[in-house]
Amino acid sequence: MSAVARGEKSERFDPSSDPAFPLHRGGKIEVRPAVRIRDAEGLALAYTPGVARVSQALKDDPDLAYEYTWKANTVLVVTDGTAVLGLGDIGPVAALPVMEGKALLFKEFAGVDAVPICLDCTSVSDVVETVTRIAPAFGGINLEDISAPRCFEIERQLQERLDIPVFHDDQHGTAIVVLAALMNAAKVTGRKMGDLRAVVSGAGAAGIAVTKMLVDGGIGEIAVADSKGLISKGRDGLTPVKREIAELTNQSDITGPIERALIGADVFIGVSAGHIPEAAIASMAAGSIVFALANPDPEVAPEIAEKYAAVIATGRSDYPNQINNVLAFPGIFRGAMNVRASAITKGMKLAAANALAEAVGDRLARDHIVPSPFDERVAVNVAHAVSDAARGDGVARI
Amino acid sequence: MSAVARGEKSERFDPSSDPAFPLHRGGKIEVRPAVRIRDAEGLALAYTPGVARVSQALKDDPDLAYEYTWKANTVLVVTDGTAVLGLGDIGPVAALPVMEGKALLFKEFAGVDAVPICLDCTSVSDVVETVTRIAPAFGGINLEDISAPRCFEIERQLQERLDIPVFHDDQHGTAIVVLAALMNAAKVTGRKMGDLRAVVSGAGAAGIAVTKMLVDGGIGEIAVADSKGLISKGRDGLTPVKREIAELTNQSDITGPIERALIGADVFIGVSAGHIPEAAIASMAAGSIVFALANPDPEVAPEIAEKYAAVIATGRSDYPNQINNVLAFPGIFRGAMNVRASAITKGMKLAAANALAEAVGDRLARDHIVPSPFDERVAVNVAHAVSDAARGDGVARI
Repeated sequence: MSAVARGEKSERFDPSSDPAFPLHRGGKIEVRPAVRIRDAEGLALAYTPGVARVSQALKDDPDLAYEYTWKANTVLVVTDGTAVLGLGDIGPVAALPVMEGKALLFKEFAGVDAVPICLDCTSVSDVVETVTRIAPAFGGINLEDISAPRCFEIERQLQERLDIPVFHDDQHGTAIVVLAALMNAAKVTGRKMGDLRAVVSGAGAAGIAVTKMLVDGGIGEIAVADSKGLISKGRDGLTPVKREIAELTNQSDITGPIERALIGADVFIGVSAGHIPEAAIASMAAGSIVFALANPDPEVAPEIAEKYAAVIATGRSDYPNQINNVLAFPGIFRGAMNVRASAITKGMKLAAANALAEAVGDRLARDHIVPSPFDERVAVNVAHAVSDAARGDGVARI
Repeated sequence: MSAVARGEKSERFDPSSDPAFPLHRGGKIEVRPAVRIRDAEGLALAYTPGVARVSQALKDDPDLAYEYTWKANTVLVVTDGTAVLGLGDIGPVAALPVMEGKALLFKEFAGVDAVPICLDCTSVSDVVETVTRIAPAFGGINLEDISAPRCFEIERQLQERLDIPVFHDDQHGTAIVVLAALMNAAKVTGRKMGDLRAVVSGAGAAGIAVTKMLVDGGIGEIAVADSKGLISKGRDGLTPVKREIAELTNQSDITGPIERALIGADVFIGVSAGHIPEAAIASMAAGSIVFALANPDPEVAPEIAEKYAAVIATGRSDYPNQINNVLAFPGIFRGAMNVRASAITKGMKLAAANALAEAVGDRLARDHIVPSPFDERVAVNVAHAVSDAARGDGVARI
């Protein structure tokens, strides 16, 4: 969740007056028995000697772990603490409150058990090796707050080595919610995805994933800018990931500052902390769509954007249309784990975005392009769609 | 818990008729929110943006993790699946039901949150490296079902690298309960620890730890036998650990089969699956103490032992005097974590054994030398004693 929450380091904190601190005292999650052991008989079933018979059965058939352990319902939430919210590289211990928050939301919104693991290592090979070694007892891996570009390679290698879903939420969770929101923004402004020309500000974990997802989702045209300006095929010194983006995007081959691409564009998507001047927003097409997702300081203030745009979304809870990963990740893992999926495919992500967009139903409006995270049907609908797509893509075990 | 439960591989299992299987369906533990998030305001405190202020505070002062995360109350229960109960090296997934059982008991008996991690690696360096990397967010490490002699080195290296308690329960948990039981057995038969001559069968994780603990606890004389017979200073080919045992024990320098040492001995402690013939038990001193802890098949059947011994203990729940680690580990970690201990010292282990022995109170009898695991005062009393000892030994942070 780094990208959509960037910039929070400017916040002050004061444990004596800030209600976040008492709420966090002692932690936000706990491990509880799912069965009650009240007497020697129960102890003899849950522990020795009864448990030995279950372990012996699992030794003979390891897939029984999906039946007789918590594996089928439990994900690892793994970070190395290098890209935590807008705070950057704050290390594993300081990342723990965020991982606990994630685990809390997994259970609250989708009944998924999630175990936070904060890694005291950061190289791609160390992270991949460590997660691979601790993975056997889990049904999925949610990578979190790992900085780009390491996050791309870590996810790729882990998914290659493991037969359970590996999902970097800062990339794909964000991308899925953005695609869903954009589908509804197009609908509410009477346009088709294929008609839209979009500009993405930011080429980190979220920017790259959003861009790929919008391409997969049928966006008409798209260009991406990083801190050096627009990414184009001719630009020198592109990283491998950005070279791939240059191939996928910017068909008009616009170069220079992001403002150049915004002229006449239908959609702006900010997933960086960079500021966009009012004049650039004013230069966009009539009825534009502005997603200024930096948090807490959007790339352009909603009060400015609304002078020009038809639909505005932010990463903040105090404005309409909050783009919040919590709309996606609980249902996605619920759906993947319900069918014991071995991976999360592009088809599953697109199905999640469609289900999320549809969950708004007839309440669709300029200021209501995404459902409320507290709408209980959201995770259920997303989960069903993801399970179906997993079966269609051949990655479901059941 | 390998040693005291050895031999369970002889058990049969049948998921359709064995009540252990329905009890295990879906797993025995779950991760639950410790705070309720019901609206956007709660979400903004537990997740972004509120959580960022807590993470920032932890970045500036990592010790605040003990206040504002689950760290202070949470242990890792780590195995590599190499010495699981009596099943041996069954691998990480098959070990999971045992680790879940342990986590369940941690919470049920001492309110400690425990996270099971089953490692897909077995070399000393890989296990040490992996556990070190995942340790930052935890308040303690309970090693479990790791085979000897690797377990000794793994524990030593981890405790050297980490500033939280590292405790291999198969060694020390077993040793603490055995010492407590033996103190009470001595008392009930009118003897002092210093008067006792003991013989230990088994020089694996439990045998080594029991022996050292009884030496620390003031046993008069002690000898240890492995599958090759009695360990003595002159024996060829001793491993480093057994050489250390040879220095500590067998003052009379008895060599050969274990039966030689049992003649006239006061105490037999079996923590192996080896069988001891009736004649050897008959050769012990009058009023002998026999702890035949192999499970489910004790080294000597209690029905045989009671022809000669004054006090008999086993690892089984269907005989009196069950030597069960659950009497020790919950209170030990509770006590260590209550004072944020950096290690578990010899003094803390002896304090735990004393508290456990005293917990029997005036119910002390030949068939009641250890308290019931369902006696709620046990973990509380052990925890208090362990906390006090941690302060005395200078390893308490608070």
